[in-house]
This record gives sequence, C-alpha cells and structure tokens, in this order.
Amino acid sequence: MTASLCKLSHVALVTPDIDRSLWFYRDIIGMDEVESDGTRIYLRCPGELQHHSVTLREGPTGVEHMAFRVGGPDDLATYAVQLRAEGLDVEEVARGDEAGQGDALRFTTPYSELPFELVWDLDKPLAPEGVRGKLPNASGRFGRGAPRRIDHVNCQTSIENVAPAEQFLIEQFGFKRREYVQPTEGPVMLTFLSVTPQVHDIALGPDGQNRTGRFHHFALDHESFSDLWRAADLARENEIQVDVWPARHGVGQSFCFYLRDPGSGHRVELYSGGYVIYDPDWEPVRWTEHMLDYGVIFSGAPFTIGGGGPMDENTPTAEPAAVAS
Amino acid sequence: MTASLCKLSHVALVTPDIDRSLWFYRDIIGMDEVESDGTRIYLRCPGELQHHSVTLREGPTGVEHMAFRVGGPDDLATYAVQLRAEGLDVEEVARGDEAGQGDALRFTTPYSELPFELVWDLDKPLAPEGVRGKLPNASGRFGRGAPRRIDHVNCQTSIENVAPAEQFLIEQFGFKRREYVQPTEGPVMLTFLSVTPQVHDIALGPDGQNRTGRFHHFALDHESFSDLWRAADLARENEIQVDVWPARHGVGQSFCFYLRDPGSGHRVELYSGGYVIYDPDWEPVRWTEHMLDYGVIFSGAPFTIGGGGPMDENTPTAEPAAVAS
Amino acid sequence: MTASLCKLSHVALVTPDIDRSLWFYRDIIGMDEVESDGTRIYLRCPGELQHHSVTLREGPTGVEHMAFRVGGPDDLATYAVQLRAEGLDVEEVARGDEAGQGDALRFTTPYSELPFELVWDLDKPLAPEGVRGKLPNASGRFGRGAPRRIDHVNCQTSIENVAPAEQFLIEQFGFKRREYVQPTEGPVMLTFLSVTPQVHDIALGPDGQNRTGRFHHFALDHESFSDLWRAADLARENEIQVDVWPARHGVGQSFCFYLRDPGSGHRVELYSGGYVIYDPDWEPVRWTEHMLDYGVIFSGAPFTIGGGGPMDENTPTAEPAAVAS
Amino acid sequence: MTASLCKLSHVALVTPDIDRSLWFYRDIIGMDEVESDGTRIYLRCPGELQHHSVTLREGPTGVEHMAFRVGGPDDLATYAVQLRAEGLDVEEVARGDEAGQGDALRFTTPYSELPFELVWDLDKPLAPEGVRGKLPNASGRFGRGAPRRIDHVNCQTSIENVAPAEQFLIEQFGFKRREYVQPTEGPVMLTFLSVTPQVHDIALGPDGQNRTGRFHHFALDHESFSDLWRAADLARENEIQVDVWPARHGVGQSFCFYLRDPGSGHRVELYSGGYVIYDPDWEPVRWTEHMLDYGVIFSGAPFTIGGGGPMDENTPTAEPAAVAS
Repeated sequence: MTASLCKLSHVALVTPDIDRSLWFYRDIIGMDEVESDGTRIYLRCPGELQHHSVTLREGPTGVEHMAFRVGGPDDLATYAVQLRAEGLDVEEVARGDEAGQGDALRFTTPYSELPFELVWDLDKPLAPEGVRGKLPNASGRFGRGAPRRIDHVNCQTSIENVAPAEQFLIEQFGFKRREYVQPTEGPVMLTFLSVTPQVHDIALGPDGQNRTGRFHHFALDHESFSDLWRAADLARENEIQVDVWPARHGVGQSFCFYLRDPGSGHRVELYSGGYVIYDPDWEPVRWTEHMLDYGVIFSGAPFTIGGGGPMDENTPTAEPAAVAS
Repeated sequence: MTASLCKLSHVALVTPDIDRSLWFYRDIIGMDEVESDGTRIYLRCPGELQHHSVTLREGPTGVEHMAFRVGGPDDLATYAVQLRAEGLDVEEVARGDEAGQGDALRFTTPYSELPFELVWDLDKPLAPEGVRGKLPNASGRFGRGAPRRIDHVNCQTSIENVAPAEQFLIEQFGFKRREYVQPTEGPVMLTFLSVTPQVHDIALGPDGQNRTGRFHHFALDHESFSDLWRAADLARENEIQVDVWPARHGVGQSFCFYLRDPGSGHRVELYSGGYVIYDPDWEPVRWTEHMLDYGVIFSGAPFTIGGGGPMDENTPTAEPAAVAS
Repeated sequence: MTASLCKLSHVALVTPDIDRSLWFYRDIIGMDEVESDGTRIYLRCPGELQHHSVTLREGPTGVEHMAFRVGGPDDLATYAVQLRAEGLDVEEVARGDEAGQGDALRFTTPYSELPFELVWDLDKPLAPEGVRGKLPNASGRFGRGAPRRIDHVNCQTSIENVAPAEQFLIEQFGFKRREYVQPTEGPVMLTFLSVTPQVHDIALGPDGQNRTGRFHHFALDHESFSDLWRAADLARENEIQVDVWPARHGVGQSFCFYLRDPGSGHRVELYSGGYVIYDPDWEPVRWTEHMLDYGVIFSGAPFTIGGGGPMDENTPTAEPAAVAS
Repeated sequence: MTASLCKLSHVALVTPDIDRSLWFYRDIIGMDEVESDGTRIYLRCPGELQHHSVTLREGPTGVEHMAFRVGGPDDLATYAVQLRAEGLDVEEVARGDEAGQGDALRFTTPYSELPFELVWDLDKPLAPEGVRGKLPNASGRFGRGAPRRIDHVNCQTSIENVAPAEQFLIEQFGFKRREYVQPTEGPVMLTFLSVTPQVHDIALGPDGQNRTGRFHHFALDHESFSDLWRAADLARENEIQVDVWPARHGVGQSFCFYLRDPGSGHRVELYSGGYVIYDPDWEPVRWTEHMLDYGVIFSGAPFTIGGGGPMDENTPTAEPAAVAS
C-alpha cells in the first residue's frame, strides 16, 4: 500500500518577539488562540476544527517545520521506512512534543532543504464558551473577517534545485504539478503542487540569492476578497508592513494580499478565491515569459518576482537548524 | 434671515441595561466610546469628527431626544422665537447638560410628538492614541467594518397625523419631501424627508396601533453591503434579534439590515448605499399600492409593513416623558 | 481495482421554452454558449475548461440526466459490470450522442430513481476569439460576475427511501456523508454527500409529496457573495422568480441564492463560499431538530423546508421517463 | 440674490475614435446610450434621471466643456452679467445645441483655463422598454455593476495658477475647499472643492509640465468597491490601459480605479465610497509632505503624483480650442 498526504496541517513559526506576533495573528488577522504550553502558542482559524494551524515559539526568525497530515493512521510507519530508504535522516517525535497532536516524523527535504513534519493524530478541541461559534462545522465565530483555514506554503531553493526538489515531492508524497513557470528555453522556475484539489498546497521557486531552504510565505484562506480589503485598511492603521496590496493572481485565479508579521518578519498571504481541480488527468498549466504578465498579477498593481522586487527582499529564513529543539 | 438645519446630529437613547447596550454599540456595531459623564455614555462612529452621534442613559427604553444641528451660530436664537410663535414649549438647555456640545433647544414636535433637540456647537475631540485612526478626515480606525456615521431616524405617528407632522417639518425646518407612499386614494402614509442630499434624514410613517410619538429606528451608514453581511453573521453568533436580514430597499436604493439593541430593544438599521439628490427641483418620487412591491424591498426577502410584520411588533417607544430629566 | 467518480460533470435539462432558458443561463446567469447540435445547446461557465456543464433540450420540464465523471479511463467498463451485477439496467451510450464527450453509461439509481450518467472523455475546446479569456486556466472572461463552475445537485425521494438511496451512492460510487439532518428520534432526512472535498456534490432529501425521482435544484459556484447580490438585482429587474434571496446556509457555511429558470421552472442555486474537507476521517456533522435553525439558514431570512415553503412548491420533476429520447 | 451651482452635470468629451469610446463607456463601463443627434452621442448612468452625464463627439482628444448645473432658473442670467463683469468672454448657447438640455453659458475659467458650461434645464427622459429599470428613482437597470452617476472632474493648471484658479471658483460659484495639499513651506498644490457635500465636485492640481488647461480625469460613482474589482478584471480581459488599480485614497476616503478610454486616451476614475460633509463650518483638511503617504493612497499600491508617475504621463488635453465648434 502507498502512503499519502491529505493536506497541509500547520506551520510552526519561530519569532523573536512572540508577543507582537501573537498580537498580529490574533488581533489583526483574527485567528483564535487555542493553547499555550510554555514552549509554543497554538492558534487556529475559526473555520478549522483541528487543534492548530499556526504555532509560535520564541527564537530567531525561522520555521521549525511545515507539517502535512498523512492520509491514514498507518502512513507514518510506512513513511519512516520509505524515507529512510531514500537516505533521509528521519526523526520520530512522540505525542506530547507539540500539544494537540500525536506522533510525528520530522526530516529535511532534499534539494529544497525544508523542515517537514508528517503527522496523523490531530485533536479537535471544542472552543471555550465565548470563543466557540454557533456552527458545528466550525470552531470559532463568523462575522469577524477572519481567515477560514490555512491554505498553502511557498518555499524557495536555488534555481538548479527547483526541478529535483519538485520531483522528490511528487514521487514520495504524491504531489501533483498544477501550474508552473518554465521559459521557452530553460528549466522549470516555479511550480505549484498539491495533494488536494487546490492549485497549490506548496509552491517551490528560486531564491533571489540562490540559497536553499527558504520560506517565502504561508497563506490563510478567506471567504471573500472584501475580507482582504478590510485587512488592508487594518494593516495600514496599524503600520504593518505590506509587500503586495490586494490584487488577483493569474496563477490560481486567486485574490492575494501579502503582509508581514511584525514580530518576526514572516510574510503572510491573505488569500481568497482560486479554482479547484477535480480531474485526475489535469494537464499542468504552463506559463512562459510571455505569459508572466498575466500570471503573477492578473488584475492589480504589477510587481516583480525573482528580480529583487519587494517580495524578495528580506525573505524570512527557514533554516533547517531551527528544527533542533 | 431664515434659520435652517444642516444634519441629523445624534440620538439620545434610554436603555434599561446600559452595559448590554454599550456592548452592542461598541463591540458588535463597532462604534467608539468617547466619554462617560456619569449620566450618559457618548459614542461616535470612526468616520465622525463630532463628539457623539449616539448617547446612552439608563432608564426605561425610550428616546431622550433626536438632535439636529442647525445651519449657523445664530439659528438657535431664531428658532427659539420662531417655534414659540408657533405655540411650542421650547426648553433652553445650557452647555454642560450633554458633554461635548453647546447650548441647545428642546421641544416636542406637533402631530408627531417627537422629542427634538437643536444644537450648533459640537466639540470635535481627537480620539486618544490607540483609538485614533491615521486619516485626518476621520476620528477612528478603518478596517473594522464599523459604520461611518449616523444616517437617519425613522419615526411614527397616528396615520391622520402623518401629513400635518410632515408639513410642520417642511415649514419650520426646510425639510424637503424626497419620496413618499400615497395610495391612489387616500392621504400620504409614509414620507422620506431631508435637509441634506440624502433621501431621508427623517422618515415619518403610521404606527401600527395608531399612536403618536413612536421611534421606529435610527440608521448607521456603512461603506459597503459586505459590512452588513459581516454584521449579520456577528449578530447571529451573538444571538442578537434581527428584524430584517440584509436586503435592498427600493425607496432610496439602499441596502439595509435591521437588528435590535439587546439592552433596550431599540431597533437599529445598518445602512449602505442609497442615492443622493443635488437638484433643487427634485420631484418627490411617489409610491402607490402597486409599487410597494419594489419600494419596501427591491431585492431581498419580502416583509410586511403596517400590517403587523416583524418590523411593527414591539416598536420601541419615544415617549415625550422620557425628555424630562 | 475499484472504480470511482471524480466530480459532477453536467446536468442535462429539458425545457419547454429553450429560447427563454438559453436567455436565462447565458444573459442573466452569465454562462457561455459552446455549441448547438440541433438536439441540445451546450453551455459552460467561464471557469470551466470542459465542453459543457449544463445542456438544454426542448421538451416538457425534466432532467435527461445528471452526469458524473468517473475517476479513470477504465472505470466505465468496471461500472457497467458492477452496476449490472447490482441488477441495474445500464444503457451504453456511444460518443456522439452528446457533443463534446465520449462513451457514457446511463441508468436509474435505485430508491432515489434519478437519471444518472457516467462519462470519462470530455473535450476541452478553446473558446473562440471574443469569448475566450486571457487566463490559460479558464475558458471565458473574468469581470462579468458569472459563475465559475457547476457545484452540486440536490435531489429528493420519498422519505423512507432517503437512507437506502444514500447507502447505494456510498457503496457504489464512494460518496462520503459530510453533513446530515437526523432528528433525535427517526431516520436520516437529508444528507450531503461528496466524492470531492466539497460538502456536497449531491444532496438527498425528502420530497414534500413523498414522491421519488425529484430534482430539487443544481448549483453554480461563484467567486464572491457580491456576485449573488448582483444577480439578485438583475433577477428583480428581469422579473425572474426567486425562491430564496441571498443568505448563508449553516450546512456547508455557504452563501446561496435560489431562482428559477423562467423557460422551464428548474430551480438554480447561485452558490458562493462553503468549506472544504481534506481529512479522510471526517466525522459527518449531524443536525437535529434543535439545530435546524442554524443549519438551513445561518444568516438571512428564514424559510421552511419540508413543510410547504417556497422551496417545496412546484419542485421541477426529474422523471426517469425524460431519459428516453 | 446670489446665483449658485448645484452639481456637476456632465463632461462633453471629444474623441478621435468615437466607436471605440462608445464601446468603452457603454459595454465596459456600463453606461446607457440615450440619444445620438449626429454631432454627439449622449450617455447616462442607470442611476441618473437627467438626459446625459457624458457626451462623445468626434475630433482630436479634448474636452468641449465640463458642465455644472446652476441652482435655479434665474441663475444663468445672473451669471451672464456677473461673469462678464469679471471680464470673461461668456458665450450664450441656445437650447438645441446639445440635445436634452436648455440654454447654457460657456466660458473659459481664468488661471485654470478650463472650458466651463453652466446649464439649468435638463430633460429627464424615461428610458425605453428593455433599458428602463423597475425603480422610479433611477433610469436604468440595477445588477450590472454599472456606475450610479457622474461624481467629479479633476483638472490641472500651472502650479502658480492653482491658488488664484481656486479663488475664482470659490468667489464666483460658491465652491468650498474641503481638503488640500500644502507643504509646510509653499503655496497650495492640490485642492478639493465642492458645492455639494461631496469632498470634491472638482479638484485642481499642478500639471507635470506646468501647462494650464489640463483635464486630468472625470469620475463615475459606483455603489461598492466590488464593482471596481469587477471592472478591473474586465479591463484586463479587454486590454484596457490601467493607470491605478483599485486602491483607497486617504483624501476623501474613497476607493478608486483609474483606466483609459481606449478611443481617446481620456482617463476615467471609477469611484466608490467617500465621506460627505454636512457641516457648514467644515474646516478644510490639510495634507503636508509628511501626510502624502496616507493621502494619495491609504491602502493599495503606492504611486507618485506630480513626479512623472503613470498618472502624469500623456495627460489628455482640455485645450480651450476644443470649445470652438
């Protein structure tokens, strides 16, 4: 039997100013604080039933790991064997290291050098009175403009490693390529991959300084682009750094708004819309130089990527070293 | 020289549960608390520079007064003479009775029996740090879905008094009739009047039980109907009573959402859109029986007015007695 | 190997006034006309690459079939054997019967008596110049408020057949129960099933007159609830019959707007939002009597179902007889 | 008695490609064509009752005139005398020159060198069946995302002429300064003036090349910023040139979207929101260098004005010569 992933579960962030980061994710973005265990603060969106989708830990800006949920209770054991057979150094983490979840595997992906975690057991705690919403299919309250759920991560590696890094994700975890940027001449530069019907659960592109192991941003899904404009005004009132104001991507067709966690500098994309792929024989959509005009931004102020634009300066790090406890 | 009014200034509400009313206007609706002087709590919308547009005072549900701002510094004196010549009992109120405003006149309107206040001097206090927004043309912060400003009041009297009550407002204060409901046979039933280019600063209609002196609702203007839906979800999460869910009126073309202040039962309309009238020779738009279909609700779930529907049950009172301190 | 379904593909509608139905789906709803072959008119949404998601054929109001796409090229053959083993009368339809698609199977589902079609090959024609949009991941043009894609069907059978009809869909096609209504005492009344991460690709509930084989509505997905309000105004201007004005369902968390194809009386839901389910161990959300308040409509004007409300009068038929050519 | 203006009435545009301009205003923007008299095509927004708010005439890109409606039937005669006493060359234009309106005055404003028209009589033709909407307070149909009405004009002159040009408008027509940009040292650079409660019916700023008589843009008001995003997508699909993508101005608090009429190059602002001023003692809001950050764009991608940014290149001309027939 083949093991698989079912979704992006959470990002475990490290921030030098955990109070300011908490203020940002809770009071500006609208996530609910679920628990604090002394090591980490656990947050989730009001549309999420699981214990956490973002965690915060104090330390130099970085990413402990980005965690994917596996497709079944036996998949962790299968992956432990499979990934070690690939030569990876797989750490087994027992229930209790992170609150609200069970055993996990941690390892660094080859070529992209990203700190991955795989997990199956996720608690689904009911929110306390006062936070709990009325709907049984959600945890928190509607009507606040908060995100519904975590959506995807976007990472970077050196340009020559994009293709083999993507190949590893496809072969080991069943990610499918949905859209990609490949100039008429030359290798794939940017690829959008998913195990869900989303256009991407993870995107992989080239780092501006050709480093590996870079965390570009993670995204939180919102119900409507009007939520993104509300957040844009709120960001402005609170002097939050903005990288890209609300606009529509051509890739994925989604609305986006990129801003920075002021405690850590981590970039967050507030996301809305986007199409879904239910066909198993989907042909990946290719963008070339000519199409980049429409692909990066379809409607909205243009900006450059890969060329030193605001999206590439000071990209927060995803140092593998941050995995060590 | 003729005295005039320039706008609706504020509504002074009385509520038996001032804590719950404060929670509602501040935490659910999004108004900012400006001051509390022991007698009243003063609130304004983030788009308003003046000291208050809603005040709360403890007592049996009622309306102390609805206040209009006069058109110039001499208009209060002119109105004192003019209204007394009409036989009205005009009370002169000195600066200090209500915080943040100057001298005022109070009287009960004939036929409609409404507690009116006229005022000129209005303080424009800067909001404190942490509440103050970045824009110099606003007092509070954008990005919260809060209302921008008070918009209008809607009052009721006995059906035979609607026409003379309207006539008084037109003659004394320069209100203009903008739209009205008058069946093919019979007198005007409902009239929309303004001194501003709005379709109404005040509406006058018939009370279901044919009483005079009834306060039906006041309205707060929002930037977008997406703010109304946000509020609708929030109302549902917080078990706020709703009379009319978001819909578009034909009269005025505006989006509306009617809910109740849970502390007092006062009905509040969250309002968005609506057209403006800049032509001095505007011909009032007449609605007859035939047109009521489109007039009350153009798009949205229909409801009945004047016939015992949810909008007519338990209409909060605007007892003139409530004016007495 | 197990055969499976990957998504709802299209609904094949029969309408007594095909010109008026075409006007409705194209000029009011915003779908693009792809082809007309003398028998049927084929339409798709601008976000769909496949040849059609709605077809129109002249005749008494009914549904030729609702078509699901199978999960792979061999699944049609597998299903032909499997369904015949279940005792079903499976018709094999050769490429050419419906334009833009390959071989298909047709049969009537037991208990629900619904005309199903299964298909694999679907053409993906490029839209002609003037209709084609700029984005390679869509077929038509953005910026018109049109739906993005077909979303789900909602069907009815006699109340005692809801449970076995659901069981058949689960066992044969891998549908999963996502949410359901089951009173504290008594059987399941309404069930929301999907093969995709949507809350439903198909819903099954009780017919008000306890008949089998009823087609309640199909739904078209929109990017934003602002598209639903635009459509509500347009419906009103064009005297389109509306069953439910824009509101938010508690089931699925989605915004809805129900109106009628004026050519046929078929009910169409314009849909936006809704959550997705990526967890393989999702526990179906149960609604009981107590919860119906929040489930049917969370925010928006309430209406009754199953009790003769506007949603139940004149439900268009999905007579199996309509399958016969 | 003092004559006055009540509102901006229309802009009379000249375009070298009248077919393409008509397509733009009608099919992309959503205005309704009212009449064509061989010389001009007359358009209005669905929320406008008057005959026209934009007219198109064939010729080199320019502005015939921007027309304001006076405040009463005698004001034209008063202004003819008053403006001639100021030394202006006032042309009297008889009913019939422009369809749907009565006598008019035309003259060039001093310092700003703008072609002004004053008019009182404006026909209010009912739209023909098929175009006419259901609401008696509007002319056309809701639900298309079209603008509601014309909002303002924005013009430029040489920097040293901004102050005297503003002074002329204030003294002769009763415009009030609502907001303005004036550096700590130096004269006013940009001023926002209105006779209505809007923040501006006309704005006056410096031309990048220090010329007089420049027409920067005119604006059309929309109900919601979601209409602006719809238009942004549509502009992109149709390769319309965009100057500023949807964003929020700090001045006026309004949402904006600037695009170009492809037939003439005239810049059009799609506008939504914005606050209103009902207080006669409004203190103009001053912006200095420090505040320009928030004033030009509050939330949205920043751009430069007065410094050669996209808003200043190729500004369409408003040559006084264009007034001559």
